[in-house]
Amino acid sequence: MPQKFNVHIIGCGSALPTNKHLPSCQVVDLRDKLLLLDCGEGAQLAWRKTGLNWQKITHIFLTHAHGDHVFGLPGFLSTMGLLGRTAPLTIHAPSNLQTYVEFMKSHFLPDFDYEIHFEAVDSRVHQCIFEDRSMEVWSLPLQHRVPCCGYLIKEKPGLPHIRREMIDFYQIPTWAINRIKAGEGWQTEDGEFVPHERLTTPPDPVRSYAYCSDTRPVTELAEWCQGIDLMYHEATYADDYADRAETYNHSTARQAATIAKAAQAKRLMIGHFSSRYEDENILLNEARQVFPDTFLANEGLCITP
Amino acid sequence: MPQKFNVHIIGCGSALPTNKHLPSCQVVDLRDKLLLLDCGEGAQLAWRKTGLNWQKITHIFLTHAHGDHVFGLPGFLSTMGLLGRTAPLTIHAPSNLQTYVEFMKSHFLPDFDYEIHFEAVDSRVHQCIFEDRSMEVWSLPLQHRVPCCGYLIKEKPGLPHIRREMIDFYQIPTWAINRIKAGEGWQTEDGEFVPHERLTTPPDPVRSYAYCSDTRPVTELAEWCQGIDLMYHEATYADDYADRAETYNHSTARQAATIAKAAQAKRLMIGHFSSRYEDENILLNEARQVFPDTFLANEGLCITP
Repeated sequence: MPQKFNVHIIGCGSALPTNKHLPSCQVVDLRDKLLLLDCGEGAQLAWRKTGLNWQKITHIFLTHAHGDHVFGLPGFLSTMGLLGRTAPLTIHAPSNLQTYVEFMKSHFLPDFDYEIHFEAVDSRVHQCIFEDRSMEVWSLPLQHRVPCCGYLIKEKPGLPHIRREMIDFYQIPTWAINRIKAGEGWQTEDGEFVPHERLTTPPDPVRSYAYCSDTRPVTELAEWCQGIDLMYHEATYADDYADRAETYNHSTARQAATIAKAAQAKRLMIGHFSSRYEDENILLNEARQVFPDTFLANEGLCITP
Repeated sequence: MPQKFNVHIIGCGSALPTNKHLPSCQVVDLRDKLLLLDCGEGAQLAWRKTGLNWQKITHIFLTHAHGDHVFGLPGFLSTMGLLGRTAPLTIHAPSNLQTYVEFMKSHFLPDFDYEIHFEAVDSRVHQCIFEDRSMEVWSLPLQHRVPCCGYLIKEKPGLPHIRREMIDFYQIPTWAINRIKAGEGWQTEDGEFVPHERLTTPPDPVRSYAYCSDTRPVTELAEWCQGIDLMYHEATYADDYADRAETYNHSTARQAATIAKAAQAKRLMIGHFSSRYEDENILLNEARQVFPDTFLANEGLCITP
């Protein structure tokens, strides 16, 4: 069974609140490490519906300094403190969000037992900004009205799978299993050397997820996200408001689909819907004309790349 | 029929979010002028359930600089701007909230077409801080861990009621009605003078509402709010956590009821419930032992003082 890699949608609306959508927030659960992507107002209130553990959030990635992406952050940070968090937390964001984080820390979050580190992200450069044993996170330069950065999360290969029947055949003891997973072979008592490759099957293929919100169409995304398993791309408007999309540096559903197609993505999830669309199928249908494997984000959705 | 004076409960929980309660926020609708009392996170999302008109908010009164009372403010101000507000708005609050309002204005609310004025309230003094034709708003010095100010809203007398049968009897024309309401009598064609008092009945009795959150028990409230129609008083804890109430400068339900009783309030509404109380009837029952006319605040409740 592949290791856990889930994307939970907390909110996928745009700036104006509606009865249907919260502002932008997602959680990536990769092997039980939780990353928060943006933190719109109400995120902490909706969080508990995910059933996820607050304390497992290690990193928060913010795309840009617009309220519908960051107004939920102070409450989120405050609640983690009230719940007794002690583990440090890193916030990655364009540098102009640093004063916001520091202002809120100094005015509203003074007494908590955990450290908040701010890591400025250069939103003009595509580069690896975070790495651990399970993943790499890459910046995706977006083009919006303020400095804006998407994020590409690439799973790292897991360990190979043990071939249970070979373990039984050679009567290999339990203590040796982790060594074999780590790459070793096995020396039998009668001198035979069994190579690693005969004892294991390869790890699961790695998966990847890109979070692209908010932006006008950026053609380089196709290259940076080539062959991606799942792309989230904002689709604020349908064709009927293409001029408005251009004016405000947003994308239409069709433009999002064009990017996903050029990236040869496996699937596309669209969101950041303008509140003017009562029926979001207009967005879905226009996207599917270009890229059939498109679906709509929605609050409560949990999807594996 | 008395003029409109409604209190809408948007949120009545305390700092930790629960599935039951939003953080503190109320709306007072007095003759179609809307006052916002505190603005916890999610207020703008819950607002639309009230059916009230955003543009009719003229004043926001904040009690103190704790997140569960103010983290909803930036989103609220932003949404009013996005919806095209042009009328100026005044925020009344202890002076240490001024930097917060100004920081959020300059970083997140730059382009809107309405002015936001900040009026510092001296949270140590009980005085009239706002007055118009319909109401007076008085500060209520509270005692919390930071400067904190409750608000007392006193309706002003409305106009007297016209006695329809007298208007008919004297065949008084429509154009004269407003003059009579304003205090004049009526001169008939055959020279008789009918005094104002015979043409009208007195205006409805004035009503008053006090919003007291968060605070340890302040005995002076009984004097400042003497004879009040409806008092909201925080009741974060029951007797079982009286020590915690004292440590954190909060009140128990029993203490809230004691204040209401001393104030000879007509009714007491309690709120700001700690998330530890699954069943808030424990709070209600302890309060009613002291002051029977107590009820629980709840999201969606609309009550007339």
